[in-house]
Amino acid sequence: MFFVTPGAEHLAPAFRGAGLEQGACVFRRFPDGESYVRLLEDVAGRRVVLVSTLSDPDQRLMSVLLAAGAARAQGAQEVGLAIAYLPYMRQDIAFQEGEPVSSVHFARILGQFADWIVTVDPHLHRFGSLGEVFGPVPARRVTAAGAIADWIMSAFIRPLIIGPDSESAQWVNAIAERTGAPALVLTKTRTGDRSVRIDLPEVGQFGDHQPVIVDDIVSTGTTMEKLVSGLLAKGFRAPVCCCVHALFVEGALARLLDAGALQIVSCDTVSHPSNRIGVGKLLAEGVLASFGR
Amino acid sequence: MFFVTPGAEHLAPAFRGAGLEQGACVFRRFPDGESYVRLLEDVAGRRVVLVSTLSDPDQRLMSVLLAAGAARAQGAQEVGLAIAYLPYMRQDIAFQEGEPVSSVHFARILGQFADWIVTVDPHLHRFGSLGEVFGPVPARRVTAAGAIADWIMSAFIRPLIIGPDSESAQWVNAIAERTGAPALVLTKTRTGDRSVRIDLPEVGQFGDHQPVIVDDIVSTGTTMEKLVSGLLAKGFRAPVCCCVHALFVEGALARLLDAGALQIVSCDTVSHPSNRIGVGKLLAEGVLASFGR
Repeated sequence: MFFVTPGAEHLAPAFRGAGLEQGACVFRRFPDGESYVRLLEDVAGRRVVLVSTLSDPDQRLMSVLLAAGAARAQGAQEVGLAIAYLPYMRQDIAFQEGEPVSSVHFARILGQFADWIVTVDPHLHRFGSLGEVFGPVPARRVTAAGAIADWIMSAFIRPLIIGPDSESAQWVNAIAERTGAPALVLTKTRTGDRSVRIDLPEVGQFGDHQPVIVDDIVSTGTTMEKLVSGLLAKGFRAPVCCCVHALFVEGALARLLDAGALQIVSCDTVSHPSNRIGVGKLLAEGVLASFGR
Repeated sequence: MFFVTPGAEHLAPAFRGAGLEQGACVFRRFPDGESYVRLLEDVAGRRVVLVSTLSDPDQRLMSVLLAAGAARAQGAQEVGLAIAYLPYMRQDIAFQEGEPVSSVHFARILGQFADWIVTVDPHLHRFGSLGEVFGPVPARRVTAAGAIADWIMSAFIRPLIIGPDSESAQWVNAIAERTGAPALVLTKTRTGDRSVRIDLPEVGQFGDHQPVIVDDIVSTGTTMEKLVSGLLAKGFRAPVCCCVHALFVEGALARLLDAGALQIVSCDTVSHPSNRIGVGKLLAEGVLASFGR
């Protein structure tokens, strides 16, 4: 039986389509800001999945943990977390002395309440696998790379897949392989939360190609915005911006269009107007593969 | 060495006054809402205390946990949490089937990151002690009842201490004992987040007394507001409203004054214009007593 937590409502049809039963539940806040949760089903002896997306993580975390705690207290046989967008994964090292490795701490908090976890394309860079982050709690990743590749092939005849930095290489390479399209992985230097420098390619033989910039997470969109302007200045066609997790904070969508992007496309791990590629089925398959682990 | 987390800055002078060294630190948010923490001190081999207040708990929890995680990872000898206001304690039972006992879950999250915890007047009602809530993690409560009693004695010649419900009895009785003032503990029936019914006393021999309503937490202030109007209607003098934890959401302060309260007074566990009674020293003493536990 699955329950959807706030923000993940749009993923319910795919879970029902995968044969999972949806449970009714209540999520609200007390006037003082505390989270309130109630599961309206008898979960005793059942396998329970909490389907969530943790963009705006601090606001959403307690709902998921309290729901998991309630399910366990009511005798659920197992409690799994299906997290469409798993936050806090980019702080995967103490970049400066005195910083926490937040990804590991966040995983530890989630792991205390879960028998297993499944998520879509976690940002794994310095950690090679989700297992290193989650430690003893079984953690499974599913990837939207295939779904993104299929969408690109359906939309463009001569795509050129472009990754803004080495962290995007895993998605770019998987998509390039599946589409058979050429790919470029660029080099980015981050100089602040909202400022980056990217080494741009020359247009060369790619003048007739449709550039498709691919990244896993778009937050402020600074990287994409810089890359869109840079590619246009170098004589490329207007690029398509494509990502898995569409955080798009601080007006990122409008800024990308203003910069000259042809189209903005995302997976629906985070609900957003740019969503074109559904991942609910993938996530539900990951859940079915995780039961009993 | 202690670090203050967002919202607890006003408690720092009392901690320094108790002989504890304050550490510099950075707390901010990434543009996407993730919490960022950095401790700017070498804490290796040190006893570290994170001083916090967790009103608006979901927004503040991650800062405290990440700071605790950072301190531990950098080799702190021990990591304690001094929490001026400990939230989620009122959900201390599944009032309806399918609800979590949030107090225990919240304590479990905190306990994962702490060697010990000290807090001011936690809302203990169905649990008899903080130890039952926190389980294996040593947890100490300090009480502001004495400080509140001292303030009442300094301000009024003939106080009458009034508790709106049985949950307030522990504070009312402690204050009545210390002040030697008469006390009334009333009966309240809660009919919703923002609605209550209170059985009012007759003014009788208390016409010349100054009613001082005492409660541990004021959130929407519905209870206090109802009681102020009720006491005035029964012929009591305009009551003083006094609490430990001044959450005062949804315009509670203005509504209490509108209802006819003479004065609103609170401890500074949560920073608020009504703060008159400092608890930093009490909390720091609790920290010193917790070291090495």
